[in-house]
Amino acid sequence: MSHNSFGHLFRVTTWGESHGPAIGCIVDGTPPGTRLSRELIQRFLDERRPGQSRYTTQRQEPDEVHILSGTMPGESESELIATGTPIALEIRNVDQRSKDYSEIARRYRPGHADITYDMKYGVRDYRGGGRSSARETATRVAAGAIARQVVPGVRIQGALVQIGDVAIDRARFDWDETRRNPFFCPDPRTAEHWAELLDAVRKRGSSIGAVVEIEATGVPAGLGAPLYGKLDADIAANLMSINAVKGVEIGDGFASAALSGEENADEIRTGADGRPEFLSNHAGGILGGIATGQPIVARFAVKPTSSILTPRRSVDADGNEVDVMTKGRHDPCVGIRAVPIGEAMVACAIADHYLRHRGQTGRV
Amino acid sequence: MSHNSFGHLFRVTTWGESHGPAIGCIVDGTPPGTRLSRELIQRFLDERRPGQSRYTTQRQEPDEVHILSGTMPGESESELIATGTPIALEIRNVDQRSKDYSEIARRYRPGHADITYDMKYGVRDYRGGGRSSARETATRVAAGAIARQVVPGVRIQGALVQIGDVAIDRARFDWDETRRNPFFCPDPRTAEHWAELLDAVRKRGSSIGAVVEIEATGVPAGLGAPLYGKLDADIAANLMSINAVKGVEIGDGFASAALSGEENADEIRTGADGRPEFLSNHAGGILGGIATGQPIVARFAVKPTSSILTPRRSVDADGNEVDVMTKGRHDPCVGIRAVPIGEAMVACAIADHYLRHRGQTGRV
Amino acid sequence: MSHNSFGHLFRVTTWGESHGPAIGCIVDGTPPGTRLSRELIQRFLDERRPGQSRYTTQRQEPDEVHILSGTMPGESESELIATGTPIALEIRNVDQRSKDYSEIARRYRPGHADITYDMKYGVRDYRGGGRSSARETATRVAAGAIARQVVPGVRIQGALVQIGDVAIDRARFDWDETRRNPFFCPDPRTAEHWAELLDAVRKRGSSIGAVVEIEATGVPAGLGAPLYGKLDADIAANLMSINAVKGVEIGDGFASAALSGEENADEIRTGADGRPEFLSNHAGGILGGIATGQPIVARFAVKPTSSILTPRRSVDADGNEVDVMTKGRHDPCVGIRAVPIGEAMVACAIADHYLRHRGQTGRV
Amino acid sequence: MSHNSFGHLFRVTTWGESHGPAIGCIVDGTPPGTRLSRELIQRFLDERRPGQSRYTTQRQEPDEVHILSGTMPGESESELIATGTPIALEIRNVDQRSKDYSEIARRYRPGHADITYDMKYGVRDYRGGGRSSARETATRVAAGAIARQVVPGVRIQGALVQIGDVAIDRARFDWDETRRNPFFCPDPRTAEHWAELLDAVRKRGSSIGAVVEIEATGVPAGLGAPLYGKLDADIAANLMSINAVKGVEIGDGFASAALSGEENADEIRTGADGRPEFLSNHAGGILGGIATGQPIVARFAVKPTSSILTPRRSVDADGNEVDVMTKGRHDPCVGIRAVPIGEAMVACAIADHYLRHRGQTGRV
Repeated sequence: MSHNSFGHLFRVTTWGESHGPAIGCIVDGTPPGTRLSRELIQRFLDERRPGQSRYTTQRQEPDEVHILSGTMPGESESELIATGTPIALEIRNVDQRSKDYSEIARRYRPGHADITYDMKYGVRDYRGGGRSSARETATRVAAGAIARQVVPGVRIQGALVQIGDVAIDRARFDWDETRRNPFFCPDPRTAEHWAELLDAVRKRGSSIGAVVEIEATGVPAGLGAPLYGKLDADIAANLMSINAVKGVEIGDGFASAALSGEENADEIRTGADGRPEFLSNHAGGILGGIATGQPIVARFAVKPTSSILTPRRSVDADGNEVDVMTKGRHDPCVGIRAVPIGEAMVACAIADHYLRHRGQTGRV
Repeated sequence: MSHNSFGHLFRVTTWGESHGPAIGCIVDGTPPGTRLSRELIQRFLDERRPGQSRYTTQRQEPDEVHILSGTMPGESESELIATGTPIALEIRNVDQRSKDYSEIARRYRPGHADITYDMKYGVRDYRGGGRSSARETATRVAAGAIARQVVPGVRIQGALVQIGDVAIDRARFDWDETRRNPFFCPDPRTAEHWAELLDAVRKRGSSIGAVVEIEATGVPAGLGAPLYGKLDADIAANLMSINAVKGVEIGDGFASAALSGEENADEIRTGADGRPEFLSNHAGGILGGIATGQPIVARFAVKPTSSILTPRRSVDADGNEVDVMTKGRHDPCVGIRAVPIGEAMVACAIADHYLRHRGQTGRV
Repeated sequence: MSHNSFGHLFRVTTWGESHGPAIGCIVDGTPPGTRLSRELIQRFLDERRPGQSRYTTQRQEPDEVHILSGTMPGESESELIATGTPIALEIRNVDQRSKDYSEIARRYRPGHADITYDMKYGVRDYRGGGRSSARETATRVAAGAIARQVVPGVRIQGALVQIGDVAIDRARFDWDETRRNPFFCPDPRTAEHWAELLDAVRKRGSSIGAVVEIEATGVPAGLGAPLYGKLDADIAANLMSINAVKGVEIGDGFASAALSGEENADEIRTGADGRPEFLSNHAGGILGGIATGQPIVARFAVKPTSSILTPRRSVDADGNEVDVMTKGRHDPCVGIRAVPIGEAMVACAIADHYLRHRGQTGRV
Repeated sequence: MSHNSFGHLFRVTTWGESHGPAIGCIVDGTPPGTRLSRELIQRFLDERRPGQSRYTTQRQEPDEVHILSGTMPGESESELIATGTPIALEIRNVDQRSKDYSEIARRYRPGHADITYDMKYGVRDYRGGGRSSARETATRVAAGAIARQVVPGVRIQGALVQIGDVAIDRARFDWDETRRNPFFCPDPRTAEHWAELLDAVRKRGSSIGAVVEIEATGVPAGLGAPLYGKLDADIAANLMSINAVKGVEIGDGFASAALSGEENADEIRTGADGRPEFLSNHAGGILGGIATGQPIVARFAVKPTSSILTPRRSVDADGNEVDVMTKGRHDPCVGIRAVPIGEAMVACAIADHYLRHRGQTGRV
């Protein structure tokens, strides 16, 4: 057990604060022989990297990943082979502006974890948000890049499907579009609306929430577990552990409350290959905690960041009532950069269950 | 790690199938000296027990709990004192009708875990749903009764807030009402609508989904952990592990996607006792994975049960295409009985974090 | 994590006190399809059962095991097939003599865990030793019987190799002999000496220590892990967790301190099958925490039980100085019955590592 | 669960190979407010550092520790305060001589883990022993330095008590002596014998085994757990996980096999402070898995290293029979440097149980 680890056989432990020398993670349990490369990991980190459009924080971090252990050189120049021992990944912190933290050290931002860290620990690294900074999520993305290599044939992709109260048009959903706009938006027309919406949010120093959708295809039927290690329960925990996430759903999710049993039941026929074929996917690819072989579909809600320019009433560590506003570089919509993070967290859950399933059953 | 356990310091392991001799659980980590009684546990089991109204399955199970270990007699006749060693709880299965299971043994109910158990294990106890039966949840409720005794001053209550597309009227929310109707409904007027709605559902042999809300008050500020052992992540996993649950949210949940940072930030003042006082609770009592001291609010969506009288297309274990309908005694809305189960799962998460927090920090 | 569980993928959780209604365990993670039977488990329990000779306690417990979950009927009448869900095993307590415990409730037996339970918990089930009674080990033996079925081709056997200062003659070691005397002694001549020795010990109401040796053959090369999940570290923990065990060694163990590197190195040649063949086994079948494929050899030391007729100086719970002697039925040498328990604990460690190795590497 | 972690609430995860850029560990669960410093950790690393006498390997590693996360500046210049978040420690590898590894890459050293790593993983970092190198133990020592700060008043010290067949004279045991000779020997006369013995071993390119003893005083009574989380079982696992360790014992250990119950029972009186006082310590400070408050005494046997100059018969990865000898810088007696490592592993076990005990019981 550990407060800074997740997964069982494929297990990730992260460390580091926003303004320390570096952040990093240890990925333990990677099957020996798994093919990796620094570039492979860097590619996903680059997707999460801030400062790539005017819609994310202008903090400039190269987020260059260093692989410190757990691999041997592979066949090509860049290829690495996992040896099965722990893979340590490290990312140096570069753009920590030296500034005066004395004020935010003692004033609690409303809606931020400043105050609860102090409630829990009585001491906290307040510089740039310390451990609670979204910066920590870079290590998740790096770990997720390894997780993707563990399960043969799995493909995990994410999209932003709602910003504020503007949801995408499902009829126009096109995965290829998600890489063509700065929002991971699968529908170009909605992307245009979001650009306007976010420009307005940004100009008034405000922030706004969002909903992210992750889809995993090629997940072998049978992964998961019936009760407390349910694949959906682990996905839910992994996604809920991302900063600012307030809700998680699988398949039809909350909408399934309004369905009848007839509507909700995904009917089954025998496919051309003789295997069961589902005629719909209200279940989001998971029944009884176990993968059906259909695409796994998860969504999560990201609240607006508490870093805003409008002063809000608060208190300081001495109990004085103060007004707090957050200057500096911030994301108007943290949901955007949550897309690659959500992908990574789903990838890690699936990799872990792949190994656990193989362990107990000897299959796959 | 275990597929049939949850929690770390307060840890519950469950066992048993619907039609075996018994079901049960082991509760490990209860603080020595915790006051318990058989009646205390039974009271919560009685709330979950089926057959108490025409809106739940007519299966008749007394669900009498037996305490087999881990306690010593207390001061009064019924009082028991936890010794700190594992508490084994057992509930005999009584109303397993002997019947011919040969048909359902091989035909997969659409929307049910029959097929995924076979995909995972290749063998399964099909009698009454076996391990996937909601019957297992009785053991969670029993464990939850012990969990409630672990944290001094905590109070956990639940309500059904939506059936189908009929949600309660928030302006009329009254916790006292939840015990006065067969739906745990906090609003008597909505309860009447639900009665009509469910009578119709029941008559046509259908089923319908629902949303449950759980509130925990008196949770000490500081419980939780910043990253992967987040209190909300553990609550999410615990709730998602309940049969038929497809979504979980904390505080404003999915609605927070539509909020601005100004709206979402719970402002803080200094209360009469000199401690921080939040002016709203969009966060649902958790910031950065750590309890703020405000009420913790969680909601979860329950899909309609797949046990319906209308035939649905499916396949059998040999790949033959068949039509499947489920005769027998079933719940038209499994969300109703999910209320005490949800309460129990939240109670267990809080008890576990209480011990973990005390372990690391020495506080509370 | 749990104080009453061990193993990761093959995980055993036990519960129960000596004088409660029953004791039991949950075995989680058994591969689906594993062939079991009640008789198979009972056979090992019978080996551990007390009262089978005058050298073990005369307490009469049938130790009949009940399988409450996790299996389906197999092909023959007695055969059971594990479904992959938790297997709950239960053994009723039968021979708890009703007697007055008021004295031992408050007086600490020197060398016994009475006092440390009170130090830890402040409350304890003193009846018959409660949770600290060797009775709990019956559940380990039952779990071990299942573990043996998990790894194809593995064979685990144990022998008593020393009582007091009388060790066996290694030159006469014969596994077949271990079932022909009441001591699991592999050397009939030593068994005769032990009979005399133990008769004397028993007559003066004393007790004596012993050393047990466990050998596991057929363990696939590669099981284990390099650092903290070392196969030998897990075997050591499992054996050290048995009541009264004070030392554990692998292969040459403490004797290897006196060896030179030349003597200790097990040389390797290529065997007839083209695979590496070790010419000796100082390592006891484990190098760097990983199985070599040779027999795994572990030994553990069992201290003499503290239940003796000679009064010893002690204190009671109020701090009064008292003399304590233990009347009643006790084992003069608890090491004898530790043999099947040690076998079971080694079996569980190997089964767990078999599943863990398969999980990470996909091999075996 | 993880193959590269140990502990539950005080949890250490290590990474790194002998000849990679660095090695390191993450220490998770340190109580917030724990006082640390780089110097404090470095002091223990310096004790383990090779090349300090002619009796250890001449590899020159400064073993400078870097603290990358989890602390804030304290009151003095060097003081650091743990924040409760994970502490990442890193040690750069400096003295990796560039050399041709092609030979040892494929030839298995008898008595070494080369062959079992290949059996398990099929791929391995052979450079300098890779993950199986004793170099990894530096990270344990660093983690142990933090563990020592967790339990108020605890003191952990170690001594070498046997090299080859030369044991210390118990009558001359003096802890102060252990820092006055290059062997951590508590008896100066024996230290002289060992100097001669080891010079001879070293000159003939051989190696020899040893026994280490660790004593922990000031451990609060009540730490530990009755069955599978026994304090002695965790200490045994922690010590057995150190490279080359083949046996572990607590208190009288294997010698207790030869004792009678009368001899073994540590009698109890009431001390001057009104608390129980034990008159002897055969138990080594642990009864029933729980600390008695007496000094905890553990010993472990270290086999001779397999790196010797005398050629031994072996095979290579292709199955060819070869002769193998190990040139280069090696320890004639790895038991010497195992002393600070053993101390650290015991410290970590105690720190973990301190937090676990406080979590469950609210005491200490």
